[in-house]
Amino acid sequence: MLGTEYEGQTCSIAGCLELIGERWSLLIVRDVFRGKRRFDEIQESLGIARNVLTTRLQRLVDEGILERRRYSERPPRHEYFLTEAGLDLWPVLVAMLGWGDRNIARPGGPPMTIVHKGECGGAVSDRGICERCGEQLGAREARAIERVPVSL
Amino acid sequence: MLGTEYEGQTCSIAGCLELIGERWSLLIVRDVFRGKRRFDEIQESLGIARNVLTTRLQRLVDEGILERRRYSERPPRHEYFLTEAGLDLWPVLVAMLGWGDRNIARPGGPPMTIVHKGECGGAVSDRGICERCGEQLGAREARAIERVPVSL
Repeated sequence: MLGTEYEGQTCSIAGCLELIGERWSLLIVRDVFRGKRRFDEIQESLGIARNVLTTRLQRLVDEGILERRRYSERPPRHEYFLTEAGLDLWPVLVAMLGWGDRNIARPGGPPMTIVHKGECGGAVSDRGICERCGEQLGAREARAIERVPVSL
Repeated sequence: MLGTEYEGQTCSIAGCLELIGERWSLLIVRDVFRGKRRFDEIQESLGIARNVLTTRLQRLVDEGILERRRYSERPPRHEYFLTEAGLDLWPVLVAMLGWGDRNIARPGGPPMTIVHKGECGGAVSDRGICERCGEQLGAREARAIERVPVSL
């Protein structure tokens, strides 16, 4: 349920922040967008305590952002997938990525770029629009290219 | 300085989250976007402890998101304005607003809508694009209309 963290705020921004503003939660969502679906992959990527990750994943499942699917019975193992509401966070992530790229100086330039999937392959703006073909994209039509490959 | 909260994360999303993910910080930024410039206005809007608000405002000034300007000498009083980096958070706020409007059920519909300033007056999408004239907008070209006026 929403409304615990920013009590009294009926604003939709507050409602969104309620979920993604929780420490690490948005970076977990980002990692699932990047194709990291398993606990150990996400844990290694973020370097956070396992009990914190367990709590955050459960909250994201409870809030309908992630879906848990079992891929091994013995031992019991799960993968995490974005729900429709989770995929719908893509414009927020893309906007934040653009802000960080413009406002945080980094040696070597932006660590990650987003491109239009498939034949077009154009760069995607922070509004989620392909700068080559002009199409307004959703999460399924774009992919991330990371400058420094992350080891799993 | 960035890098304290999400240590080891070079991602631009993490860099953005570092600032706006801090409890209440983004809602302070939202309130300044809504024209609330004074400590008491923001404090009343958010209903948070004065010492917390003082700390958050100072951090946002230190990070170059807000600028403090004195409007009264005796007693000393300040107003807060968005810097260029602060105004540049507008696409993030608009994307979050869109997500909240679509994914959080509220009686009576969205509490706030964004419209293109001036003659056009078209509704603004969660990509920050005017749905009437098609223009891609920035913070200065749009304004918020609140369904329920907030008393100051």
